[in-house]
Amino acid sequence: MSDEAAFIAALRKLPLHDGARGLDDDAAILDIGGETLVVTHDILVGGVHTLPRQDPADIAWKLVASNMSDLAAKGAEPIGVLLGHMLGEDDARFLEGLHETLDHFGAPLLGGDTTSGGPPRTWGLTAIGRATHTPVPSRSGAQAGDQLYITGPVGAAMIGFEALRDGTNGDSSAYRRPMALLPQGWALAPHVTAMMDVSDGVLLDAFRMAQASKTAISIDSTAVPLAAPEDRRDDALRWGEDFELLFTAPDDSDLPIEAHPIGSVCEQNSAPLILDGLPISDPAGLGYQHGDSANG
Amino acid sequence: MSDEAAFIAALRKLPLHDGARGLDDDAAILDIGGETLVVTHDILVGGVHTLPRQDPADIAWKLVASNMSDLAAKGAEPIGVLLGHMLGEDDARFLEGLHETLDHFGAPLLGGDTTSGGPPRTWGLTAIGRATHTPVPSRSGAQAGDQLYITGPVGAAMIGFEALRDGTNGDSSAYRRPMALLPQGWALAPHVTAMMDVSDGVLLDAFRMAQASKTAISIDSTAVPLAAPEDRRDDALRWGEDFELLFTAPDDSDLPIEAHPIGSVCEQNSAPLILDGLPISDPAGLGYQHGDSANG
Repeated sequence: MSDEAAFIAALRKLPLHDGARGLDDDAAILDIGGETLVVTHDILVGGVHTLPRQDPADIAWKLVASNMSDLAAKGAEPIGVLLGHMLGEDDARFLEGLHETLDHFGAPLLGGDTTSGGPPRTWGLTAIGRATHTPVPSRSGAQAGDQLYITGPVGAAMIGFEALRDGTNGDSSAYRRPMALLPQGWALAPHVTAMMDVSDGVLLDAFRMAQASKTAISIDSTAVPLAAPEDRRDDALRWGEDFELLFTAPDDSDLPIEAHPIGSVCEQNSAPLILDGLPISDPAGLGYQHGDSANG
Repeated sequence: MSDEAAFIAALRKLPLHDGARGLDDDAAILDIGGETLVVTHDILVGGVHTLPRQDPADIAWKLVASNMSDLAAKGAEPIGVLLGHMLGEDDARFLEGLHETLDHFGAPLLGGDTTSGGPPRTWGLTAIGRATHTPVPSRSGAQAGDQLYITGPVGAAMIGFEALRDGTNGDSSAYRRPMALLPQGWALAPHVTAMMDVSDGVLLDAFRMAQASKTAISIDSTAVPLAAPEDRRDDALRWGEDFELLFTAPDDSDLPIEAHPIGSVCEQNSAPLILDGLPISDPAGLGYQHGDSANG
């Protein structure tokens, strides 16, 4: 068993906390006293999620940003992070990037663990946040009749990855220093029926949202805003790490921020995803699945 | 910079949460919604913290137990855990062990992340607990005049490690399936001035407690109870992973559980540790330091 989907299916048979939401969401929810916490953990592995000779400061940035994006998707504000760090020669530069990132997102360090080991080096980050709105948005709340929205374009991380990989002069910042849309998540949380961040590709993530919601999601691929050349549209729809927010809301919603309608939610008949009218039942090829060879 | 002490010193210059306790403790403390949470994160790396061909179920056990021991040292009861998992061929066996361990400690799964990558494989676990007593015991509360206690013997994990490494018939369970002394931690929390778990060796951990408390700790090495032959006493005092609780309490304390007095706390004049009357200022050689070659 070295396949992520099979592993997660097996994890679901373990004793799960109610707040784990069946392991179907970006984060877990903990009701503590009068507050609701949102907790999430992400890993980066050298060579799997990074490029050779990538600036360790950028690795630190992405490690934090990917977790902050999970908080954003739940409408949570950061409380702090725990770092799991494998020691290496370039740690001074990693720490510079980490400092910058924690400052940027307002997420102080709570603790963690350091170890020797590798290569490959592995970094883990646990982020703890406080929900700004309850119920905390989930992946599973999409309702037939809802509209599907995305907060911004996809493809910038892909273009940035290729520029960095190929050593061109192209702008690689979207890949190296992704943003996490925290304020957008806070604004949207009271208005959405379902929300998640686009970390593995808009098509794959929409597929997962439809599955979790037991609905179908229909996407008009030409409506998805693009930060890449038009002839790369198919690739951009399947590339993750843009960390835009994907969400559903009732048809007549008065949204607090600008977002792009890219499809709609309907009853599930045959397939979770309907792409330009074509039902898709198999998520293979829709985006980045862990256990794949690296795409970023 | 590939040395753990230097790295942690540099981490202390980052924006720290108040609950990080200056990164001087086993866990971070979060006051939320009228409750106090205790959060901790530990990593295991294949080949650094494990033996070749070690049963993956035992790796899962130790991953959880080492975090539960951090909760025990803070007198916290488990709420749940997040797992950072690198996929591998032996995952079915890992999951069997994880299931057993989560059941044993009453710690349901909250979520986490899975990835490809390795070897070496890395596992991270974040444990979240609820304090049963506030203020939550720290490493830094030892007071001159206090007695130093340990809850049980040291050396069993060392003997177990050697049995497993050498393939003898000796009992390796203390190394493979360490306990975490949660009930003892809950009972002790209201009575101690400082508490930590012995994860890196009783001498090194006492040295750290003295440093954090800005005191000196004097240990009578022959008073430390031993789960190893007497001629291995010096090794057992420097070997971690027994996960007994090391704590200080006022001289006249009526302790709720049996514990072994092994020394006392005094003003720091020259050195944090006084071992059989000899001041020790340099922690090198006192126990397991991450970034060392493996000792378990």
